[in-house]
Amino acid sequence: MSETGEISLLAAPAIRDKIERIAAQIIETHPDHSLALVGIHTRGAVLCRRVFDLLRARGRNTSFGTLDIALYRDDLDNLGTIPSIRGSDLSFPVQGAQIILFDDVLFTGRTIRAALDELVDYGRPARIELAVLVDRGHRELPIAPDYLGQSIPTLRQDHVRVCFRETDGRDGVFLTHPAAQP
Amino acid sequence: MSETGEISLLAAPAIRDKIERIAAQIIETHPDHSLALVGIHTRGAVLCRRVFDLLRARGRNTSFGTLDIALYRDDLDNLGTIPSIRGSDLSFPVQGAQIILFDDVLFTGRTIRAALDELVDYGRPARIELAVLVDRGHRELPIAPDYLGQSIPTLRQDHVRVCFRETDGRDGVFLTHPAAQP
Repeated sequence: MSETGEISLLAAPAIRDKIERIAAQIIETHPDHSLALVGIHTRGAVLCRRVFDLLRARGRNTSFGTLDIALYRDDLDNLGTIPSIRGSDLSFPVQGAQIILFDDVLFTGRTIRAALDELVDYGRPARIELAVLVDRGHRELPIAPDYLGQSIPTLRQDHVRVCFRETDGRDGVFLTHPAAQP
Repeated sequence: MSETGEISLLAAPAIRDKIERIAAQIIETHPDHSLALVGIHTRGAVLCRRVFDLLRARGRNTSFGTLDIALYRDDLDNLGTIPSIRGSDLSFPVQGAQIILFDDVLFTGRTIRAALDELVDYGRPARIELAVLVDRGHRELPIAPDYLGQSIPTLRQDHVRVCFRETDGRDGVFLTHPAAQP
């Protein structure tokens, strides 16, 4: 445990391996399909971009997009402030697309439901699959990932933090127990 | 195979056993919670009612409701006619409720997504789980059941038909291959 009370759950090499495995599983599942990879802001988009680069390196014809679900959250009324809006960027036709949605952590499933709602507002995809780096449990909706880096049991009140080089200067997954918080 | 080209997948005794197992799993998962069971029209509501009766016989405090997702379908534009509206009946407060949603067959997942949307329009449930009698595969959304009678592999173009005494005069699950259809 570090001085900040954080436990390291996944180090950089493990994260790299898990992302490579997700990319390999996607290629195996979709030998022919033209795919559209869509990442949820902020770290879902980073994960998505890394898988996108791996698929492109394997010669796969793939589109890339990002989704900002801030305005689709079902707890907007309970938030003190309006979350910052970064905007979505889907530069491919959603209608009829084979989409894989990316997020860093799967928890209650409410973020994913909001993302499905927003995607469907753009058109009717042929299929939407879900890829996440960490499934920390405590689902509140019947949502399940198709591609999963690692399932990590947590307490409801734990805080799970994913760090990526692109956004945080380093790769890592960390857990904080509330009792250990400063 | 019957004269109509239908293959029987589940007979009445197997259906009874599977519904009893779903009820037992729900009781085991929720020893304390006050539950609200919600069935999707038409045969999801019948399945829901049977589990509701089993839970009530075990002394469980449970609410019952039905959901008509006709107006929430994402393919309304493609339908030649407006589907018949039977209306939803949720006589309990959805806000904060522990809900179990029932449908007879899980297929693409689009019906379930529509049902989640409609439920959330009534309030913000604490949790929504999903119970289905048959999972026939071919998911087009990252939806997964929490309680499942039986997983039955099918071809995309197969037709799976669930019959219940209450709606069809007898219990049974049948499959028709398109080539065998009259």
